[in-house]
Amino acid sequence: MTDETIDEIMSATYCALCKHGYASLRMQDIADESTKSKATLHYYYDSKHDLLCSFLEYLYESFDEAIEEPTGDDPAEELVALVEFMLTPRDEDTHQEFQTAILEIKAQGPYDETFREHLTRFDRRIHDRFEAVVEAGVERGVFRSDVDPDATADFFVTVINGARSRYVAVEYPFENTRRSLLGYVESSLLADGAGVVVE
Amino acid sequence: MTDETIDEIMSATYCALCKHGYASLRMQDIADESTKSKATLHYYYDSKHDLLCSFLEYLYESFDEAIEEPTGDDPAEELVALVEFMLTPRDEDTHQEFQTAILEIKAQGPYDETFREHLTRFDRRIHDRFEAVVEAGVERGVFRSDVDPDATADFFVTVINGARSRYVAVEYPFENTRRSLLGYVESSLLADGAGVVVE
Repeated sequence: MTDETIDEIMSATYCALCKHGYASLRMQDIADESTKSKATLHYYYDSKHDLLCSFLEYLYESFDEAIEEPTGDDPAEELVALVEFMLTPRDEDTHQEFQTAILEIKAQGPYDETFREHLTRFDRRIHDRFEAVVEAGVERGVFRSDVDPDATADFFVTVINGARSRYVAVEYPFENTRRSLLGYVESSLLADGAGVVVE
Repeated sequence: MTDETIDEIMSATYCALCKHGYASLRMQDIADESTKSKATLHYYYDSKHDLLCSFLEYLYESFDEAIEEPTGDDPAEELVALVEFMLTPRDEDTHQEFQTAILEIKAQGPYDETFREHLTRFDRRIHDRFEAVVEAGVERGVFRSDVDPDATADFFVTVINGARSRYVAVEYPFENTRRSLLGYVESSLLADGAGVVVE
């Protein structure tokens, strides 16, 4: 498969997931969003499950590229930027639909080992990224010396998961969680006199 | 319907949801868990959706009863007890299965107005309970005077949602979130000299 073909199928999968959700998604729905036939999709992918696993892999790679590595210059600023990045919709128009499909896939975690592996990889990647920036902040004295980078990173990941789940279930706005998390940075992480992050 | 019949059908629904999940649940699966036939269930409930809405209503009522009202005597202790209550499985054996079914139902939020109304009611109830205890704590000077009870309560609800979603998706243990939240109470809520909550 050429990169163009992969990009096209992945983008069709994204659109089909947004339109139909995970549970009722059929290969035909994905074919309908692309120039490829259902038979062609089946030629490349054994099953819908196989295609969705490739989609999660593809998502991971583009997430991995998009998430900027910490420079360590200003860890507080980097942490705020990371919170913003995690709590800003990539595409306003399809945001709710896509988050809903992802929540459905999360609910498959206990039943589907391959999905769970993909989800765990995402979870770890986000954790490690938060951990690196918190660690840099502690080392530079911007964050308090008693802050545990591993536990703090885990807390951020949990809050981000909660923001997404609540957004899907009850339309709770991301904006509120963003504000709460910035307040948390200020009250629980910033060293005395390290300056104020939130207005 | 007698209360006993309602209890039996609700308990059968709980078991069937744990066994089959939400997406593939059929009336027959619920009948299989009870002494009632599928026809009897259809006599009482128009559809699977109707039965599940009654189940959410029933869950809400038992949750509402179980969640203790704040006494205001020791708000910090009450807040800790509330966090423990929200992050302790009711039934270890079926905990993961049940949380998974609930996550599936949350993913129906955008498509199902009645589900969303039920979910919003739960969300509000948990929020209001946290808000009351944080408010009492601020009034009594146990929590810092600049703590916003409404926003803080919302933050707790988000974290609890995140703990549940991560538990289902990647088996992240409740215990870690419990510890982080108690750390948060200590670093962000407790007034200076109000004592230490976590060992």
